[in-house]
Amino acid sequence: MTRQQAVEGTIARCRQQVNDAIQEDLPVSQPERLYEASRYLLDAGGKRLRPTILLLSADSLADAVPDAKPYRQFPAADSKQVDVLSAAVSIEIIQSFTLIHDDIMDDDDMRRGVPAVHREYDVSTAILAGDTLYSTAFENILRTGAPPDRSVRALSELATTCTEICEGQSLDIEFESRGHVTPEEYLEMVELKTAVLYAAAASIPAVLLGYNDAVDPLHSYGLDIGRAFQIQDDLLDLTTPTEKLGKQRGSDLVENKQTLITVHARQQGVDVDSLVESDSVDEVSEAEIVEAVGVLEDAGSIEYARQTARDFVQSGKERLDVLPDNEARERLFDIADYLVERDY
Amino acid sequence: MTRQQAVEGTIARCRQQVNDAIQEDLPVSQPERLYEASRYLLDAGGKRLRPTILLLSADSLADAVPDAKPYRQFPAADSKQVDVLSAAVSIEIIQSFTLIHDDIMDDDDMRRGVPAVHREYDVSTAILAGDTLYSTAFENILRTGAPPDRSVRALSELATTCTEICEGQSLDIEFESRGHVTPEEYLEMVELKTAVLYAAAASIPAVLLGYNDAVDPLHSYGLDIGRAFQIQDDLLDLTTPTEKLGKQRGSDLVENKQTLITVHARQQGVDVDSLVESDSVDEVSEAEIVEAVGVLEDAGSIEYARQTARDFVQSGKERLDVLPDNEARERLFDIADYLVERDY
Repeated sequence: MTRQQAVEGTIARCRQQVNDAIQEDLPVSQPERLYEASRYLLDAGGKRLRPTILLLSADSLADAVPDAKPYRQFPAADSKQVDVLSAAVSIEIIQSFTLIHDDIMDDDDMRRGVPAVHREYDVSTAILAGDTLYSTAFENILRTGAPPDRSVRALSELATTCTEICEGQSLDIEFESRGHVTPEEYLEMVELKTAVLYAAAASIPAVLLGYNDAVDPLHSYGLDIGRAFQIQDDLLDLTTPTEKLGKQRGSDLVENKQTLITVHARQQGVDVDSLVESDSVDEVSEAEIVEAVGVLEDAGSIEYARQTARDFVQSGKERLDVLPDNEARERLFDIADYLVERDY
Repeated sequence: MTRQQAVEGTIARCRQQVNDAIQEDLPVSQPERLYEASRYLLDAGGKRLRPTILLLSADSLADAVPDAKPYRQFPAADSKQVDVLSAAVSIEIIQSFTLIHDDIMDDDDMRRGVPAVHREYDVSTAILAGDTLYSTAFENILRTGAPPDRSVRALSELATTCTEICEGQSLDIEFESRGHVTPEEYLEMVELKTAVLYAAAASIPAVLLGYNDAVDPLHSYGLDIGRAFQIQDDLLDLTTPTEKLGKQRGSDLVENKQTLITVHARQQGVDVDSLVESDSVDEVSEAEIVEAVGVLEDAGSIEYARQTARDFVQSGKERLDVLPDNEARERLFDIADYLVERDY
């Protein structure tokens, strides 16, 4: 078995556990339409990378083989038992709630290959489905059976994470109408909008299981790989064929989104706003995108972004020195690599 | 000093404390536009009834004169100190978040005499402002300094309350397009949408301060007076002149909203849908409303709603037997009465 097969197998097994737990922890109750809408995006799929990181982090801390100990009764540092799967579901619920609300704000029609919730249902239902998921995530993280002081700390981290995600989304919207954004400002936005949820996923098991010394390093690991994940997402938007991407290649350029690539290119004097004439993804031609990507490559902006992502992955992996040397830690290394090596 | 002056004075003093605490606990930080939008509705005013109930509940439990002990370091049952003002602010923040999102869903233009947040700013900012307040409320209730087991219980109650508010709002929307709703169904919706936040306000101080026997009775007090509050709101919509109401009198009838009055009238055979011809509040005439109210009066529906509200107030007041006989408890009686005697 190659290393890649090993990590893909682990991700698949964790995903299955998370999917089953979502069914258990988020039953469709009354009012049915509200709960169906809340489950709609969760049921549409997703890689479950964040909850997988949470479960592997727990495994590594407890020096357990991945997926060998029951995640619902997982051994804590002090021989108590904690339902880390419930915490993993919380993280996925928060992710889902933010996507539902973001899609309303960005007026995006599709998500995970299905209509966005506000398209499948309506805007009111989508707002309310997101709000329901929000509190459900907090309810779920209180059901782990961890001692109260650790539950309070985990919840506090989750609440702060949500506030920061909102701040990040607000900056992202603001940047769309701003000409000049520095790489530092862009990376701060990415930290808030994307990376903090990876940080919560990686560090919350250390909180809940009572491995206090590992909390901050795991948090930093999550921040670093979360930043790398977002930069890779920005790169894929430019470099992946439309069919594979599931949406128009170069749509960030068309929609005037700031990315680390465009922010760097502007610093190099590239007139980014004129790279693509069309301002609709339905009108832009493949040739226009290819030419624009060529300009960004010549400016060194593509390579700059690639190198920045690689540096973050390297930095994130070094944080894992705090963990025992075991198979689960290897998988956390692999996931870090996977985030910048994936091609979709 | 009459009893009414006493309760109005207490409410005014508590409101001032809550207003000051909002400034302290919710500073306008970066990104500025997001935090300004989050504060906009909170700063526009409001009676602060729910946080006032929370503070008076704390006073009564501790057998303290209202507003005599510092709410930031309030004595718990076990001589620990708890910041009950921070919990009071949490409740007001949740109220504000639900109003901001409800106004988007209902496409309401005005709230508290100012434009709704999605009108003053835009829909995206309003969604995000609500989402920010949501997590801020959870962060704030973690700052009371209560022992972790009590904080967990308070947080759990707040999270469940938020889920129920979403369920109630979902039912409210569903009822608008349903012909037949029973009084029981209507009251269940009101319990979820409105009353649970009163219940949280009344019972959370008992949780945080360690008066466990008082938690359930105070929760029931809150549910009862919350139901009464909503029924009174429905009555005021029909009976208060437009100038005083701050919006078109009878707008619930025009907008086909189910209320306890219309639900009862339907049961009496009244053709509620034909009571008002106009389907826009801009077109309806005062005469049409007056005639419609006359029909509802003749059907006994107005009196039925009044009596139901009075019964809830009576029931709620009886729950307060659990509290020591003191001035703060008197004010909680008075607030219950005030909710059904108020004329705006």
